[in-house]
Formats: sequence, structure tokens, C-alpha cells
Amino acid sequence: MPFPFSAIVGQERLKQALLCVAVDPSIGGVLVMGDRGAGKSTAIRGLAALLPEISVIAGCAYGCRQDDGASQCERCAAMSDPETIRRTVPMVDLPLGAGEERVTGALDLERALGKGEKAFEPGLLARANGGFLYIDEVNLLEDHLVDLLLDVAASGTNVVERDGLSVRHPARFVLVGSGNPEEGELRPQFLDRFGLSVDVSTPEDLPQRIEIVRRRDSYDRDPQGFAKAWRRRDLAVRRKVVAARDRIGEVEVGDAMLERVARLCLSLGTDGLRGELVLMRTARAIAALAGRDEVDTNDLREAAPMALGHRLRRDPLESGQEGARVERAVAEILA
Amino acid sequence: MPFPFSAIVGQERLKQALLCVAVDPSIGGVLVMGDRGAGKSTAIRGLAALLPEISVIAGCAYGCRQDDGASQCERCAAMSDPETIRRTVPMVDLPLGAGEERVTGALDLERALGKGEKAFEPGLLARANGGFLYIDEVNLLEDHLVDLLLDVAASGTNVVERDGLSVRHPARFVLVGSGNPEEGELRPQFLDRFGLSVDVSTPEDLPQRIEIVRRRDSYDRDPQGFAKAWRRRDLAVRRKVVAARDRIGEVEVGDAMLERVARLCLSLGTDGLRGELVLMRTARAIAALAGRDEVDTNDLREAAPMALGHRLRRDPLESGQEGARVERAVAEILA
Amino acid sequence: MPFPFSAIVGQERLKQALLCVAVDPSIGGVLVMGDRGAGKSTAIRGLAALLPEISVIAGCAYGCRQDDGASQCERCAAMSDPETIRRTVPMVDLPLGAGEERVTGALDLERALGKGEKAFEPGLLARANGGFLYIDEVNLLEDHLVDLLLDVAASGTNVVERDGLSVRHPARFVLVGSGNPEEGELRPQFLDRFGLSVDVSTPEDLPQRIEIVRRRDSYDRDPQGFAKAWRRRDLAVRRKVVAARDRIGEVEVGDAMLERVARLCLSLGTDGLRGELVLMRTARAIAALAGRDEVDTNDLREAAPMALGHRLRRDPLESGQEGARVERAVAEILA
Amino acid sequence: MPFPFSAIVGQERLKQALLCVAVDPSIGGVLVMGDRGAGKSTAIRGLAALLPEISVIAGCAYGCRQDDGASQCERCAAMSDPETIRRTVPMVDLPLGAGEERVTGALDLERALGKGEKAFEPGLLARANGGFLYIDEVNLLEDHLVDLLLDVAASGTNVVERDGLSVRHPARFVLVGSGNPEEGELRPQFLDRFGLSVDVSTPEDLPQRIEIVRRRDSYDRDPQGFAKAWRRRDLAVRRKVVAARDRIGEVEVGDAMLERVARLCLSLGTDGLRGELVLMRTARAIAALAGRDEVDTNDLREAAPMALGHRLRRDPLESGQEGARVERAVAEILA
Amino acid sequence: MPFPFSAIVGQERLKQALLCVAVDPSIGGVLVMGDRGAGKSTAIRGLAALLPEISVIAGCAYGCRQDDGASQCERCAAMSDPETIRRTVPMVDLPLGAGEERVTGALDLERALGKGEKAFEPGLLARANGGFLYIDEVNLLEDHLVDLLLDVAASGTNVVERDGLSVRHPARFVLVGSGNPEEGELRPQFLDRFGLSVDVSTPEDLPQRIEIVRRRDSYDRDPQGFAKAWRRRDLAVRRKVVAARDRIGEVEVGDAMLERVARLCLSLGTDGLRGELVLMRTARAIAALAGRDEVDTNDLREAAPMALGHRLRRDPLESGQEGARVERAVAEILA
Amino acid sequence: MPFPFSAIVGQERLKQALLCVAVDPSIGGVLVMGDRGAGKSTAIRGLAALLPEISVIAGCAYGCRQDDGASQCERCAAMSDPETIRRTVPMVDLPLGAGEERVTGALDLERALGKGEKAFEPGLLARANGGFLYIDEVNLLEDHLVDLLLDVAASGTNVVERDGLSVRHPARFVLVGSGNPEEGELRPQFLDRFGLSVDVSTPEDLPQRIEIVRRRDSYDRDPQGFAKAWRRRDLAVRRKVVAARDRIGEVEVGDAMLERVARLCLSLGTDGLRGELVLMRTARAIAALAGRDEVDTNDLREAAPMALGHRLRRDPLESGQEGARVERAVAEILA
Repeated sequence: MPFPFSAIVGQERLKQALLCVAVDPSIGGVLVMGDRGAGKSTAIRGLAALLPEISVIAGCAYGCRQDDGASQCERCAAMSDPETIRRTVPMVDLPLGAGEERVTGALDLERALGKGEKAFEPGLLARANGGFLYIDEVNLLEDHLVDLLLDVAASGTNVVERDGLSVRHPARFVLVGSGNPEEGELRPQFLDRFGLSVDVSTPEDLPQRIEIVRRRDSYDRDPQGFAKAWRRRDLAVRRKVVAARDRIGEVEVGDAMLERVARLCLSLGTDGLRGELVLMRTARAIAALAGRDEVDTNDLREAAPMALGHRLRRDPLESGQEGARVERAVAEILA
Repeated sequence: MPFPFSAIVGQERLKQALLCVAVDPSIGGVLVMGDRGAGKSTAIRGLAALLPEISVIAGCAYGCRQDDGASQCERCAAMSDPETIRRTVPMVDLPLGAGEERVTGALDLERALGKGEKAFEPGLLARANGGFLYIDEVNLLEDHLVDLLLDVAASGTNVVERDGLSVRHPARFVLVGSGNPEEGELRPQFLDRFGLSVDVSTPEDLPQRIEIVRRRDSYDRDPQGFAKAWRRRDLAVRRKVVAARDRIGEVEVGDAMLERVARLCLSLGTDGLRGELVLMRTARAIAALAGRDEVDTNDLREAAPMALGHRLRRDPLESGQEGARVERAVAEILA
Repeated sequence: MPFPFSAIVGQERLKQALLCVAVDPSIGGVLVMGDRGAGKSTAIRGLAALLPEISVIAGCAYGCRQDDGASQCERCAAMSDPETIRRTVPMVDLPLGAGEERVTGALDLERALGKGEKAFEPGLLARANGGFLYIDEVNLLEDHLVDLLLDVAASGTNVVERDGLSVRHPARFVLVGSGNPEEGELRPQFLDRFGLSVDVSTPEDLPQRIEIVRRRDSYDRDPQGFAKAWRRRDLAVRRKVVAARDRIGEVEVGDAMLERVARLCLSLGTDGLRGELVLMRTARAIAALAGRDEVDTNDLREAAPMALGHRLRRDPLESGQEGARVERAVAEILA
Repeated sequence: MPFPFSAIVGQERLKQALLCVAVDPSIGGVLVMGDRGAGKSTAIRGLAALLPEISVIAGCAYGCRQDDGASQCERCAAMSDPETIRRTVPMVDLPLGAGEERVTGALDLERALGKGEKAFEPGLLARANGGFLYIDEVNLLEDHLVDLLLDVAASGTNVVERDGLSVRHPARFVLVGSGNPEEGELRPQFLDRFGLSVDVSTPEDLPQRIEIVRRRDSYDRDPQGFAKAWRRRDLAVRRKVVAARDRIGEVEVGDAMLERVARLCLSLGTDGLRGELVLMRTARAIAALAGRDEVDTNDLREAAPMALGHRLRRDPLESGQEGARVERAVAEILA
Repeated sequence: MPFPFSAIVGQERLKQALLCVAVDPSIGGVLVMGDRGAGKSTAIRGLAALLPEISVIAGCAYGCRQDDGASQCERCAAMSDPETIRRTVPMVDLPLGAGEERVTGALDLERALGKGEKAFEPGLLARANGGFLYIDEVNLLEDHLVDLLLDVAASGTNVVERDGLSVRHPARFVLVGSGNPEEGELRPQFLDRFGLSVDVSTPEDLPQRIEIVRRRDSYDRDPQGFAKAWRRRDLAVRRKVVAARDRIGEVEVGDAMLERVARLCLSLGTDGLRGELVLMRTARAIAALAGRDEVDTNDLREAAPMALGHRLRRDPLESGQEGARVERAVAEILA
Repeated sequence: MPFPFSAIVGQERLKQALLCVAVDPSIGGVLVMGDRGAGKSTAIRGLAALLPEISVIAGCAYGCRQDDGASQCERCAAMSDPETIRRTVPMVDLPLGAGEERVTGALDLERALGKGEKAFEPGLLARANGGFLYIDEVNLLEDHLVDLLLDVAASGTNVVERDGLSVRHPARFVLVGSGNPEEGELRPQFLDRFGLSVDVSTPEDLPQRIEIVRRRDSYDRDPQGFAKAWRRRDLAVRRKVVAARDRIGEVEVGDAMLERVARLCLSLGTDGLRGELVLMRTARAIAALAGRDEVDTNDLREAAPMALGHRLRRDPLESGQEGARVERAVAEILA
């Protein structure tokens, strides 16, 4: 019974970023940096709980869905018209110390030792299929795991070849990483591979703080009662996401918009072209959430800090000013 | 036969902090920093021994209690009206060198090798369920273990997924960590996650020291006789805790108090909002222990150093002055 | 369904280098250095997908081909006229964290444990036979693996002697490594053993960038449709490679050309004589791709930067100027 | 056949310290620091050999004694009136490289592998029960082992929980550590937990040295003959220890003495209160060895350097002057 | 089908050193330092291929030869008149990452696990018996392996005692190590234990370079044809080695020569007396290769740089000038 | 067939030290420091080969001798009048990389795995019983192994308690360590525990060097013939050792001598009293080798550098001058 998404006070940018990837997962993962205790994981848990259930093929150990297409597991791919069941959107925590085997799945030792059979035991990636994978203190995660996760998140398929096993199964999830910038930086190529990034901080506003503590205490004392009280507002958020998912295939990104996207990235000197793609898609998701059929300059303006802030080359003289640099470029080019 | 809690000379703040978490475990763990030989572990052992026994489900390997609700183990959850037995409040020592497997529990190798069965062997967390987990020299504990412990302490559930096992069982305990500040600091995010912190030191007062040595020597020479002599006073402490537990659900934290809580934290610049929650709850426990139904400014004044002292941003110019900074803020805001 | 080779915008030098090694694999591996997101792996995946299928001996675990001669595996070598099947050119990703066992193959543990048989389980090198082996972030690969890979790539045979196994099988592949020069340098002796090297970068040209984003978005939204649209152009590239392969045995490198090759290398002070060999062969491949029967000065001019740029002794005063040094030497000697 | 205790030339303080802990083991371990070759281990081996035999329960793998009470092993605790046998006081060497398993005992692998039974194989702690555990070069011992040893020495019980075993057995022994101060210091909290410390050095007096070499050479050439010659004097020492053990329960520490104990510790600024307890007990043992029923100022004067010398806060300006600081405080307070 | 020894352009000193150790293996190993790509391994492979086949005892897993005498394996030693077979001179590559087990041989796990038998599986040292063991990048080899190799090379016997095995078998081989001085130095005691050392470099001469490339390209395109073309010249080299082997037992090193040998070493300050022995033997081998029966000053002059260059004490002011120092001493003493 | 002891040119002090410990092994180990190639191991191998055979109990896996008394293995101790066989004095090489198991012996895995029996497989210490254990580059040996070796060498018994085994067997051997002072120093406490130390160096004398090389070359070309030629002189050395062993029990060390021994050590400030014991015993062995019944000042003079040179406190201003300091003290006190 997580804290309701709609009961979160403030944190608008974080909530918008999560809604965008819920609408279009191809935007990629979300990186949330900020103070301890600012509720980073609360938002993602709350969102997962309110999204519509997903439909998975009954009995599949990997949670294959009918639209997983070519990445379906061998067994599901072989079935002509498989039965499906509905399941809450998974929200899987990846503990910092998890080994690669636990993440990707591995040989099932019990069956290997007991029966001499080489069977695969699915890992966290299989459990996260169709939902979210959350990593707290992502800047402390071992490099090879982040690499692995981002690779799988990008391809949507988990391929395991080890211990004489050769298994592939769908693993489509949105990676959400959170961390505290004081504890170490992410390597630039990791940063670049998260779709969006947002900074969160503890509010400085007194009434807002009191309201947060009050809601938290109410929730801790009676989670069920509290969740019930916010149920209606959570359902409204769900409806908005569902509508945007339906609409997004139709949302247009006109040539003028596309040129602005490219100009922004060129002006900010983002490496490669992921910045352009993500910015375009995020703006499209924002438009879809707003119920519009066309991306406009305001959508770009809202999407740019989330999509580009973590893609700037580090400039030692302007460290920590990435947000401001994006703002300036936005002001200049989208004026 | 531990040293009786009520026979401890001095150390009022430590004893009060332990009583508070005994009344409301949601306050979180207690961190005790101070000199060697100042009796840090004596107090916690003594308290565990005098608290009323807990009632656990008979035959449960994890010590499930009937009020563990959703976190009950599979077997207990399946029973409609399980029999219960009474058990002393557990006080489990976590040795510094304990591996993760010993803490969380792990595959029972004997059964795995001998019978090819994959059974779970509960760890220290299962044993601590419903009681205290004590870590001496907590500042020397490996980071990943502290993380793990604080996570479990916060969620009240131990989830083990490894070696092909998937087990969850209740693990509600109060973490008590002690250490010597000269041996290394705790990482800020660990500090922040302990509910309360208190400093202890060897008394400088001569008669008090003589009294301590006298009592200690009496105890060492005849533990049973000594404990018997202090039994009545220990029972009085137990009654006080039991009464406070009954009362705490009714204790009010008025709006004015809540605002002061927030002002104190804002003024001290504590990260996140855990400070507010803990301060509020500790003050509530103090009021309950005092037999009152409403939190007053004095409760806040007593609770603030324990709840906030370890949450201040480090200021190199005022290192070691955290207590004084809290005192000043208290003096100013609760005046 | 990879992104079509012919739909790649720009990156002419990278595409030419890959075509050269596709025509004459004895040129050796290709090293691609450059920005993140510049599409380094896209080109190699696209090329592998359009090349004509290879013919392998049916049922061979190592993908032996009839022209593997002395390096054929024991079983294939024993067959007089083995049946063959056709197979897509393999393009195998070597993950950074792969252990040596996974790369070279190893004892099949399942059979070893289950049946007490010592059987070999082929590794990534067997899968890459006749195709490409791609390593991203090659500058982060452990030294012993790069050594191993370059040795096998050079000899065309994978010899495994461990765990009491003694297996040899053909492993003819082109190694393609990519990396980001900011993340660390390759050891000089690795550099030297790649046949060709090319630098890639994100284009700075606005319309080109917009075109790339547009194509990428089209592809991501409908990979099948996009690939179909570019199929004809991909087939033209395939025909060009096939024709060049047929022709290359006949292409002459005259004495005058050979002298220029040696002069260029001597003037640039490349270590050893690999530079000469690779330059000669690359120029020959370029001539063959162009449908000519003789290498001319222009072929040398085009081949020199790819074949020699990474073979210069490091000069701290001209770090990063290797390209310019080659250009100067080319201008002087091929004038 | 160790070198006889009574044949040791000089080293009076070391011999007195060992006699004190032989009389009252609750004083705790003894730390012996000094030159190589000064006979540190000779004294402890000699003492163990002359002490009266201990009486252990017949057939117990842990050497349980009837007075081990609550810490008796499961099997012994279940016996109503167990038979006992007599055994030499054990003197167990703990080699520097010993792993934790060898120290605490561990799963008996032979039975585990051969019969699939999970049996416990006792370690060095079980063997040392009722005697001495000697660690040479204790300042080189790994921290976690010293911790473990001091914990067990303090509690008198060895609790092993690992490999699915859960065993507890009595392990009452006196820890004797020796080391060379030039090879590294002990961590302060280790120092503090040894009851007594003494410094030893090679005598500078010529006749004494000649006597030592003569005795050593006699012993090395004919250990039996030499031991026989000193047997009578060793027996006198044994009688003195036995008498003191009988008497110590009656020895009084008057209020005036207790106050001086506290004043001494306060004046020297020893951390915690272990110093007071140990000083009081050591003086009591000295009085008992001297055949007196009351502790006097001379007993304190003799006990203070052994009990307090290693408990002073390090003062860089007076490093190595701990002895002198204790002497000054003794002179001042016990004057 | 290696590149023919006689087709190597230049590199006279390297070729002479290899011929010397082929004639008298007691000279010891050869260390070849120099640029990448200078054909260090080509010469050794070529030489091994042209030497006369060796005669080994049929069926012996260690390649025992009849003249291995006391070092023959147990089985061969037990046969009175064993049958022999002829075998190409082995040339074994020792990969940098090879573990000690693979080098020395080890327990045959398959038989150990499958049949419970403790059988020995020979390693690379057994395979190299009677031939060459080649280590590229020897300066990167782990110290303990170089130690092991030089020990075995010196004793001619491989003794394996581990895993309960006790095996000894002949392992007479010439160790050839090559490396790049820029990648790290060898420890002095390793240097000293190689018999000879030579430096190689890429030729700077244009026609020579062109010739090398031409021959290499011919060889790569048609190894069989190329080898056939050089067969006659290779056979001449073989005859020269065979003749020198026959003659060397008769070659005299006169007293005057022996004194010059000692003077040279004394003047250069080489440690120990290995320098003298190696210099004497190398000069003897040179004389034998030249078909002479007596060593003369020219033989010493030719042998000295190879035998002594790596035995000089490092003089920081003359680093890299070892060759020149030897030349000066030669000029002075052999004048 | 080692190089004959009597054919060694020069190195008188090394030979005398080895003869002394051959006569009285209780002197302890010998440490030989010096240049590479100075024949350190040649002398020890030669000595072992010429000593009279030892008599061991037939069939004993540990080479128990009848005079091993209390340290005999269980099986031998149980036999009343065991048969004996004669065996060459063992000379065992301890390779630097040997693990503790190989040194001390360990569980016999074959029998453990195959038959489920826990049998002990003797290690190098058992093989060295009654002879020499040689460690080259002893200053590179891991500390824990040197500790172990010196402990066993001192006690004459190897006690193994691990893997559930409990084995003790005699292990009386003389430890000979050699090293190069340039490669690192021994820890002072190791130095101190070697009985004797000698420095060796390559002779600077030309005729001596020529003679060494000549003998070495003769030996290498025909070991049997060379050994035969020196057999008579080796036998003379053997007779001298045997006679000295018979006599040493009778050799007197008078009071005046004993006082000089003590004065020397006191004057040099050697730690502890091992110096005195070793000096006395070495002088006694020298007298016995010389056929005398009383130690005189010349014996002390000869013994002092070997027995004391490595026991001086390091004086940074006189590093490397230990020999000279001993000489000065000898000159002064033995004048």
C-alpha cells in the first residue's frame, strides 16, 4: 500500500517526468538526483500503483506480454493464442549489492544439483518486465551493472548466456535511478543514456513542509485509510495517462519544431543525437498528456531541462549550472 | 542475567531514548556514541530484559506475531487462528564480521546437500523480530550491511531472494548502534536514518564513579542476587512503558507544536523531512511516558537534541558543536 | 532488424573501412573511436545484415566452413564431402564483463556434472566464425581479453586447452572495437594490431542532424517498414562487396606503389612492418571496390589515414594531431 | 616438559601478573610487551604446567566443567550427575594465521561430506576452556579475531552460528597476548580490554644474564633432569596460588581503598570504568597471594602500573612515559 | 607452416643467438627485446621448424627421450629398451595469462571426478620437452611463473607436487622470451638467468623494408608455395646446426681465452659467475657453427654482447648504454 | 649428483657455518645473504650429499627416527622395537610460491573424495625431517610461512590441525635461507631466529674465478666423473663431521668463556638472550670440529660474526657495518 501519487506535495517536475515515460517508455530511464528524504522513491512507487494493470501471458515465468513480439520467450512464441492474466504494474527494487546473476537470472542450482537439469531461474529483469526498475543511490552502483541495465532497457530484451544456458526473454521496463550528487558523479556515458533527469529538493516553504509531515504521519498511522482518501485523485491521474497513451501515435512534431530541437542541441553541444530524440519524444508526451495533437514551443520549453540538462559537456567553471545553461539556450532559441 | 536497567547510574538521556523507541518503534533506531566502557550495551540489554514478553505464533521459524499482518510468513499467513506462545523480547548482537547470509538468513546447506531440498535457514534478522538488534562499533560496519539493516528496520520485512530462494518474513526490530566517534564517522545518510542519537560519557563525578564500581562488582560476584535486589525498580519501568504504549495512540500534537517542529528543522537546515517526523514522534512518546495526552514545548525541548543532533549539515567550523547548535535553535524557537 | 547500412547519413570513412575489411578480412580489425551516440555500432550491424550469407557445414557446433582448411574442427575435417547450410553473417557482441571462458568456450558443466562427460561448449568466438565480433568501449576491456582476441583474429583458429580439454576450431572474424578516447587510451601494442582505425563524430551540420533524427524516429516507430524502404540501396552495396571480393585476387600493387607505401611508413616512423602490409592491402581493397585492377596513388591517399593514423609514436607535443601528421606525410610523399 | 616457572630469573612483574589472573581470572587477559627473546612465553607455559589440574566432565568435547553452569554444552547440561576426569590446565597457542573457523570451531567437513551429518568440530576456544590462550605478536593479529577472542574471554561462552550450526559451549580462559611495541600498536579499545599489561625486557645485569644462559643450556641439554631439580620450588608456587584462590572471596576492599581506586583513575583520565574494576580486583588478588584479608595501599601501589598503564589516553608529548605517569599519580594519591 | 627461417631479412644477431642455443642448449634461454612487429617470434618459429626431428619414447605422455637419463618419467625409466618415434621439434607458446597448473600440468579433473582416480595431465612444460618455449611480452609475465620456468629450464626436470600428486618428468627446453623495453623492465635476477640477450629493431633501410613486405605478402597469400621456394636454404641451415652439434664436444677453449673471458666479466663487474660460463659456451658454439675446433678472440668478440649485455649492474647515468659498455670492454681487453 | 662440497672454491665462512649446524642442529638455521650466482645453494646441496645416511623407521610416512622420542608419530610411538632403514640426508627445496598446505601437509583429497576417508598427506616438512630445508630468496617469502617454518624448526614437531585432522609428527631440520640484500630486508624477528648468518660474494680474484669456471664447466660436462674425482676429499669432510658429533657432548665451555660470551652480547646490545646461546653453541661446534675438548677465545672469535652479525639493532648511520661492529666488539672484549 504505497503512498498515493496524487498526495505528494510539490515535486511537479519529477511527477511530470515519470508521467512522460509512463506514456512513452521509449524516452528511456529517469534519473532523479537530490537530497535525502525528499521522497524520490515515493513518487515512483505511487505511480506504479495507480497505472492500469498489464496483461501477461498466463504461466509465463518472464511475464511475456502479447505485444512483446520477437522478444517473447521461446515457450510463449510457440503458443498461437495464449491465455492472458492481468497483473499490477511491477515496481522492482534493485538493491545496490545485487550480483549480476540475481539481476539477469541464472542457472537454477536446486534443479541443477538435485535433478541434473539445467533450468533457468528468472532474475529481477524478468520481474520488472512491463514496469519499473528502481535503483536507489545509482551513483554507487557498479559500472558493469549500470551498463547491463541500460543495455537491456534499451533493447527490451534480456539475453543470458552463461553456465551453458542460452535464454532470451522480454525485459521492457523503465529504469528509474536516484542518487545524491554529493556522493559521487555518474560517468558521462551513463548520464547520457538516461532519457530524462530531474533534480529534487526538500521544500523550504513552511506550510508545505507542515503539510507533508501531516500527510506522512496520517499515512504511517493508517495507510489503508489514507490511500482510500486519495483514491479518486489517483484514478484521475490514471485516466490522464491512458488517454495520452492512446493519443501519442497521432501527435505531430512539425518541421519547425524539429529544427528547434536540433538547434537547441547544437547550441548546447550535446554529444551524439540522443538528446534530439529524447527531447522530441518528451515534448510529444507532454503534448499528449495535455490532450493536444501537436507539439508546440511550450512543450519543448518544458521538456528541454529534463531531456538535456544531463547531456552537457562538463564545464568546470559552470559546474552545477547545467540547468541555467539549458534555460539560457531555451530562452534564446525558443524565444 | 543482564545488569538491571534501573541499576544503571546516570545516563539519563540514553535511558530516555531507549524508552521512547520501546514505546514507539516507528521512531527508528538509536545511535549511541561515546567512550569505551561507558556502559552503552548494558542499558539496551537491561531494557530488553525488563520489557513484557512478546507473543509469537507457535512453531514459526521467524517469530511471526499475530499483528505482523501482511508481512507474516507464508505459513503463518495461511493459518486462520494460530496458537501463540510468549517469549522474552529478543536482544540480538550483530557481530562486526557477520556476512550478509548470516544476517538475512540463507539456504540451509545441510538440507540442500543431504536431501537436495532448498530450505531457508533464518538469520539474525528473524531472531531479532519483535526486539532489538545491537551493533557495537557500528561505524566500522560495512556500508552494505548498514544499508540492509536500515532498509529492513524501516520496512519491517526481510525479503531474501538468492540461491533460488524467495522468502519474506517480518523483521520488526529497533536497531541500536553504538560507536566511538574517534574511530571514524558514519556516512551522513546512515546518520540520517537512525531515529535518535545520544552521546554518552564516563561520569567525572567521584561518588558516582565509586557507586558504579561498587554496583558492578556486586553484580559480577553474584548476578542473581543483584538482579533480585533491583527487580522491583525494573518492574516499575516496565509498567511505565506498558502504560505509555497504551496511551500514545491518544496523544495529540497540536498545530502550534507541529509548526514549531517544522520551524526548528528549517532553522537547523536538516535535510529532507525525516527530522520533523522523528521529532514529532519522540515528543509524543515522551508525553506518553510522562502520562500526558498532549505534547508540550518541554517535550519538544527534550526530544530535539536526540532527534536532530545528528541531522545537521557538517560545518567544519563547528564540528562537534552540533549539540550546541540544536540548543541555540531550541532556545530561539521554543522560547 | 538493424538500421539499414545505406540509410546511415554521412560517416563515409567508417563505412569505407568496414567495406574494405569485408572485402579482405586479412586487413585485420577496425577500431572506431569517437563520441557517444555517433552510431558506431549501427554501421557494423547494418553491414553484417546486408552481406551475402555464408555457407557452413551442417551440424557443426563451430560453424566450420569448407574453406577453413587445416583449422577445421576434428569432426568436420574427418568428413569427406560434408553437407552445408547457409547462414546470415554473424555479428556477435562481446560484453565488457565477459570472462575468458565465455569467449573461448569451456567445459560443458551440465554434461560434466550430469553424465561425467568432458564436452566442450563453444563460446562467442565460435559464434563469430565467418563474421564480425564487436566490442564496445574496447578501451575498457581487460588486457588479457584483447590479447586473446587479437591473437585468435590473427591466427583464425581458437585453441582451447584447459579443464583437460583440448579443442581447436576455426575462428575467422573481423574484430571491430569502438571506444571513446576520453575514457582511456589503448595500449600501443593493441592499437598497432588493429588493421584500420577511423574517428567518428556527431555531425555539426543542422540539416544533416535533422535528417538523422527523422530517419531514426521513423526506424524506431516502424523498423520493418523503414528497412523495406532502404532494401534496394542495401542490395547495391552487397553487390559492390561481392564484385570486389571476386576481383581483389587480380589487383596489382606495382613496384612504384610499393615503394611509396614503404616511404610513407618510414617517414612516419611506424613501428615494425604491419603498417606497410595493411596500407598495401587496404589500397588494394579500395581499388577492388572501385572496380579497378591496379592500385593508384589515390587509393594510397585514401587508405593511409585509416591504415597508419594509429601507428604513430606518441608525440606529446602533437597529441591528437596524428591525422594531421599522416596528411602531411601523404601530401609530401604522394604529391 | 616446559621450562619451570620458578627457574625463571627475574621478570617479577610478569610473574606476579600471571599469578594474579591465575587467582582471579575475572581480572581479564594479560598483555606482555617487550623485546624478542625475553622469555615472554616461557613464563606462561611454566605457570600452566604447575597449576593444579582441572576437573572436566568425562567425554565432553568442549571440556565442560561442573561449575560452568548456564554455559555448559547441551549434552553436559542434560546430565544430572556427570562423571568427571582430571586434566592438566590447557595452554593453547593461537597461531597468527589461524582462521576464525579454527578458533571458534566449525562444521566437521568429513562427517558433512561423508555422512551428510551436520556436526560441530570444536576449535581452539574449546581446547583452551579452563586454561590459557596465548597469542604471540598479538599486535599483528587481525582485528576481527582479537575482537572475537576478547568477547569470548569476557562472556566465558563461545557461541557459533554458521553453516547452519548453532552451538554454544563454555570457553573460560585467560587470554595472554605478547608483542613487540616496535611492530605496531594495539588499537586503544583492545588495550583497554586486557586486564593487565606488563613490559618485559632483557636484563642488563651480567651475572643475571650468565645465569639465564646457563639455566637455558642445562634445560635444553636435559629437560627432564632440569625440571626435576626445580620441581619443589614449582610446587611451592602452586600451593600459594591454591591458597590465594581459597582466600580471595574473603578479602575486603574497604571504602577508603575504593575511593583511592577511583581517585587514581580519575586523576589519570582512564576511559570508562574498567580501570577501576581491574585495579580493585588485582589489588585483591595481590593481598590474597600475600595471605592477607584486606587490601592495603601497598597492594594498590603494586597493582596500579599493571592495571592502568595501558589505559591512559595517548599523549604524543609523553609517548612511552605511561609508566612514569602512573607512578606520579600513585605517588600523589597514595602518598 | 611457419615463415622460413632463411627467408628472414636481416636480424643477424638474433638468428646467430638462436643457432647457438640450438647447438648448445646449456647456454640457457634467449631474451629478445625490441620493437613491436620486428619479427621476434618469426625467427624462433622458423628455426624450430627446420631443426632435425627429435626421437621420443613411443607412448610417453611427457615426450621422454632416451638421453633424458635420470630425469625420465617413472614409466620410461622402467622400460629396458623402449621403442621410439620421431617428432618435430616442439615450439610451445606460453600465453601471458596461463596459470601455474596449465604450465606444469595438474590433476586430471575428468578422471578425478568421473572415476575417482588421481591422474596427472601434462602441461605446457611437458609439451616443450626437447624444443622451445616461447613467451611474448615476458616482462609482463608474473614473477612466480618466470621463476618456475627458469628453474625448470635450468634443471631440465619438472617436479610437480600438489593435489596429492607427485610427478617428475624431463622438461629440457630453451626458453625464448621477447618483450618491449618500453613496457617495463625485467627484474635483474631474471635478466641474469637468461643465457643470451639480443635487441632487435625494425630496419630503417628502404629496399630492405620493401623486400620484407614483399616476402611477407607472398607468404601470406600462399604459405605452401613460399615455404617450398626457401626449403633448400632452410636445409642448409639445418645441416650447419647438425654439424656444429657433432663438433662442439671437441672445441677447445684455451687458457688464454679463458683468462680473457674472466677479465671481461671482472672488468664489466657482472654479478656471480654465470656470465663467464655463458660467454665461454657461446663462443664455443660460434666456433662450432663456423666449423672450427678452437675458440678465438673473434668468437669472444661476437659472443660478448649477447652473453654479457644484460648482466651489467644498472648505472642510471648510462641506462640504455649497456651495449656500448660491453663494446668498450671488448675493445680494451680483446684488443 | 650435486656439485661436491669439497670442490667449492673459497666461501670458507659459509662452509664452516654449515658444518657447525651439521654438528649441532640446535644452533638453528643458517641465513646466507649475497650476490646472485655466488653458489649459495651449491654448498648446502653438496653438504647434504656427503653426510652419513640417517636411520628412519621403516614404512613411516614422516620419516620418524628412533631418537625422535616424544615427537614420534602415533604409529611409530606405538611400536616397541621398530625396524629401521637408512636414507640419504634429505635436502628439500621450499619453492617461494608453496602454500601452507604443501609445507605442512594436508588432507589427502583423493582419499577424502574417493573413499570419504580423512587421511593426512605429509608435506615438505615431513620430507625434510632429519635434514635440510632450503629456501631461496627467503626475504621474499610470505611472513606467515617464515613464522611457521621457524616455529617448527625450533620445536622439532609439526602440528597440523585443520580440515578436521589432528596430526603431529617430528620435523627436525636445519633451515637454510638465502637471499639478496638488494631485494628487501628480513623482519628483525626473523633475522633473530636464524642461528647463524653469513655473507657471500663473488670472488674478485682472477685465478680463483678461472678455477671456479673451469670446475663448473667440468662438472656440467660430466657430473659423474667430476664427483668421482672429488669423492675422497668429500669423505674426509664427512669423517670430520662424524667425529665432531661424537665429541661435542664432552666439549667444555668454561666460566671465563661464558662471561666473555655475555660481555660480547651486552656490549653489542643484542636483543634477548638467543645471541648468547647461539654463540656458545657455535663456538662449541667449532672446537669439536677442530678436535678440541674445550672452547677457547679463538673459537669465540670465529663464531661471533656468524652468531651475532644479524642480531644488532639497526643503526641507520652504520647500516651495512654490522660486521665491522662485531669485529670491534670482538677486538675489545676478546683481546
